[in-house]
Amino acid sequence: MPRFFIDYTPEVGGEAIIEGADARHIGGALRMTAGEALTLCDGKGTDYACTITAVEKERVTLAVDAATPSVSEPSLAVTLYMGLPKGDKMELIIQKAVELGVTAIVPVATARCIVKLDGKDAAKKQARWQKIAAEAAGQSGRGIIPTVSLPISWKEALVRFRTEQTLLCYEGGGQPIGTFVTPADTAVSLVVGPEGGFDPAEVEAVLQAGGNIATLGPRILRCETAPLAAIAVLMENSGNMV
Amino acid sequence: MPRFFIDYTPEVGGEAIIEGADARHIGGALRMTAGEALTLCDGKGTDYACTITAVEKERVTLAVDAATPSVSEPSLAVTLYMGLPKGDKMELIIQKAVELGVTAIVPVATARCIVKLDGKDAAKKQARWQKIAAEAAGQSGRGIIPTVSLPISWKEALVRFRTEQTLLCYEGGGQPIGTFVTPADTAVSLVVGPEGGFDPAEVEAVLQAGGNIATLGPRILRCETAPLAAIAVLMENSGNMV
Repeated sequence: MPRFFIDYTPEVGGEAIIEGADARHIGGALRMTAGEALTLCDGKGTDYACTITAVEKERVTLAVDAATPSVSEPSLAVTLYMGLPKGDKMELIIQKAVELGVTAIVPVATARCIVKLDGKDAAKKQARWQKIAAEAAGQSGRGIIPTVSLPISWKEALVRFRTEQTLLCYEGGGQPIGTFVTPADTAVSLVVGPEGGFDPAEVEAVLQAGGNIATLGPRILRCETAPLAAIAVLMENSGNMV
Repeated sequence: MPRFFIDYTPEVGGEAIIEGADARHIGGALRMTAGEALTLCDGKGTDYACTITAVEKERVTLAVDAATPSVSEPSLAVTLYMGLPKGDKMELIIQKAVELGVTAIVPVATARCIVKLDGKDAAKKQARWQKIAAEAAGQSGRGIIPTVSLPISWKEALVRFRTEQTLLCYEGGGQPIGTFVTPADTAVSLVVGPEGGFDPAEVEAVLQAGGNIATLGPRILRCETAPLAAIAVLMENSGNMV
């Protein structure tokens, strides 16, 4: 069933309105008409079962039939700190990470990042990435739209790692990533490097900040494959692939 | 360290030769010279530590110093039966599946496949896909080059499922995929549908053939994301991500 995110909380038994691009999509590509069912999602974990009552060009009116907690949100909130990769790999990473259940994505400028993003360029990229996250959230049936933030420096990231349960994926060793979470865990920060991986000094800094070093096994994963494999395993081991 | 696949078994203490494109790559892009170390892999699970003794334009000569079993081959052989997806998604799937440890990939024409591949087109695609698998095997440090076969029909696939431990990934339910393997398992066949998923009759046929239905959780994964998440979880739960 089609799902659309709204930025307000509709009342069950009341009316909801969809306007703009989503409304055009419903009447256009989807060719939906009055009487058909769709789901609205408030982006905060609640789904609303609705029935279309009117389709106009820029406006769809719906009856809100029932509210249910979204069943697709994992109990483990994974924040992915991703060393900025080259080209459009970040787009693939964001799309797939959202499908797999990530809660937030924070691009990080690490020592071996080739790409530098500042000011206007960063804001433009971030807007594009957030749009990709929203599309993937709708497509995969997520109950929230994961946030993609502006790139931060490694120094800023380290400050956060001091208060978060941090797992840095490292080719040079570490404990199996699956050993770090159980169904009792509620949040974890996953740190993945760019093409060139992490500088040993960065690995040491994460250990100093109280973080852990995790391995994804003996096969060398590309920088866009590593976060997806890691998120899949974290979701599985925290009981969120059932 | 650079790794190259060879199609013969060199003798330890003896000499090995690399010719053609790989030789040009060693002398060209990699700028390697006599005295430097590289690894040869026989594609059957053995790595050979070598030292370059001479670099010519079309020919590199090496001293074979030692043979060791490749450490990167998983104990679980995963065969991925993949419903042919649209566009170039199959290329992404092959590259990532090889990195994650797949042993063989078999494209399958399922009921909801939009793409049809026959005759010359199929052979051309298969050759391209096999090349992508070889590149990914080299890059990720695999001990074998996983095979990508010519597309088979659903009927042919079903015959195989009767004698293989088969897991079909289904949006419509099933047991968590992680519950199907332990470190004691040695082989599993993973079946993933194209964009439109599986026809209920296909799911029923897999059950009739003795296969199992597996879920990847409540989030709807794209057809290229599902096999990667599934392989990651199968590798983790079979003890192959350590």
